Amino acid sequence: MRQAGRYLPEYRELRRKHSLLELCHKPDLAAQVTLQPVERLRVDAAILFADILLPFEPLGLGLTFAAVEGPQITRPIREAAQVLDLPPVDPATDLGYVLEAVRLVVRALPAHVPLIGFAGAPFTLASYAIEGGGTRDFMLTKRFMYAEPRAWHELMRRLAELVGNYLAAQARAGARALQLFDSWVGCLSPADYATYVFPHSQRALQLAAAAGVPVIHFGTGTATFLEDFARAGGDVIGVDWRIPLDVAWERLGADSKRAIQGNLDPVALLAPRPELERRVRDILARAAGRPGHIFNLGHGVLPETPVDAVQAVVDWVHGG
Amino acid sequence: MRQAGRYLPEYRELRRKHSLLELCHKPDLAAQVTLQPVERLRVDAAILFADILLPFEPLGLGLTFAAVEGPQITRPIREAAQVLDLPPVDPATDLGYVLEAVRLVVRALPAHVPLIGFAGAPFTLASYAIEGGGTRDFMLTKRFMYAEPRAWHELMRRLAELVGNYLAAQARAGARALQLFDSWVGCLSPADYATYVFPHSQRALQLAAAAGVPVIHFGTGTATFLEDFARAGGDVIGVDWRIPLDVAWERLGADSKRAIQGNLDPVALLAPRPELERRVRDILARAAGRPGHIFNLGHGVLPETPVDAVQAVVDWVHGG
Repeated sequence: MRQAGRYLPEYRELRRKHSLLELCHKPDLAAQVTLQPVERLRVDAAILFADILLPFEPLGLGLTFAAVEGPQITRPIREAAQVLDLPPVDPATDLGYVLEAVRLVVRALPAHVPLIGFAGAPFTLASYAIEGGGTRDFMLTKRFMYAEPRAWHELMRRLAELVGNYLAAQARAGARALQLFDSWVGCLSPADYATYVFPHSQRALQLAAAAGVPVIHFGTGTATFLEDFARAGGDVIGVDWRIPLDVAWERLGADSKRAIQGNLDPVALLAPRPELERRVRDILARAAGRPGHIFNLGHGVLPETPVDAVQAVVDWVHGG
Repeated sequence: MRQAGRYLPEYRELRRKHSLLELCHKPDLAAQVTLQPVERLRVDAAILFADILLPFEPLGLGLTFAAVEGPQITRPIREAAQVLDLPPVDPATDLGYVLEAVRLVVRALPAHVPLIGFAGAPFTLASYAIEGGGTRDFMLTKRFMYAEPRAWHELMRRLAELVGNYLAAQARAGARALQLFDSWVGCLSPADYATYVFPHSQRALQLAAAAGVPVIHFGTGTATFLEDFARAGGDVIGVDWRIPLDVAWERLGADSKRAIQGNLDPVALLAPRPELERRVRDILARAAGRPGHIFNLGHGVLPETPVDAVQAVVDWVHGG
């Protein structure tokens, strides 16, 4: 999870001097933050420090971060006509600073630690672009989707091209795996996922897969349309804690070559140590006897997480 | 849904003169708001106007409503010791004004229109009591649950007794059906639902059922533990739009006598009329040929909802 930095004291120290966007914009700082959890925790992979909403800057939507409310989009998409006015985005130049951070990280990492690049999925990006920030009911997003289906699909097509190319560019810059984050897609019904989201996630994942590195397709709340979600693509399917790991894996097809990623509830890291250990070992047991499990959280690390709890989890997963 | 009033102009007019809590506290006003949608829309049942958090006042937790943030709990539960200090609550006296509103509504309603009473489920109430307001990650709630399991179960036991008795008292005051709202229970894993919530929901539903009227057990995001959720109790199981109605019903047991309630996405009411109609007819088709479907939304009406869209849905469901 990109928030991997949020709970580390060395990250907080950097944040006292730099805004979140500054850390993203300056490749040397983004690389530094990316490396922090690797150096401290000895995790098996690094994940790029960036924000899924960075493409909103070259898209002209405007992006700021408020202390409490999180991301704020200055010029959200509220009318169909706005979609056609979005400028084309070329990740190689418009998000070149992210690719530069990828190159710096890859150069600094030991050869046995791969870097995972990532991007927001079309639906999750569209929801922020339309809502203008976080939301609990996704009212504006769904209303736009239902009322302006042509503009919706055009927006999703453009976002799919953008993030697919952006992911592929990260692989060319040295990322050895890619992750597509569809954090909020669980607000949809299975039928709406199939109609309004599936073809666009599929396109983004195809473009990413063409870069020739493994692709992780992550979502939360996907239990009622997990088969469709997986059918959209991804060598690895990421699931949250709402579905037991073995149940999810079974639903991906018993003889499927799909790997699975997950699925500890991030709040478990704030539990007493024996309770945390019980939960980690339960997930490991559910994945036992089958290759292809990437241990991870079901969503991002919470800023309140004690570092030594994360370290304990890494050590248990490593066989301690 | 209790928010049935929020989108009606006659409700907004009352709200210009009275705070939300005033409308709840004064039985004649609460009765008036309860009757508004019945009079305007000719729905088949009335649902009591109240707030699920009203029991927090006699519990001494303190309750206010902020314009944007919604409910604010003045003295949230953060320490295990606070649970034992909670005073006993007798719904007959401490929430007597709600029961008086029930009596006034029942007197005013035509005989063929039943009143549905309701209460928040133990988990949803506990989450507000601990978080102190709305939340997206339920961090404080789950941390309390994991770190203080004895205090958690004690809190849930007390809330279950309280809401179970409160529901039964509403039935004795004249409500002809009861609904237990577990709006936020979908943030949990199936295992956590079974351990930390199930026995307490079951207890609350048993106490309610003893009053001898049908009980509706409503939740959102329950798809990954729907069988357990239903096993906790309820003559009717309410589901949200994340699971197709026929799939949910099938999972309750093909020969089960359980009725089902749902499951239109509230945002669909903001869709263009033909799209809204398509969605309503799809739900009706999924319930066709089987008795025991209560048409409803998957969650509360949004304040932005056009009244004539609600009226159109009522008319379609009535066979128009």
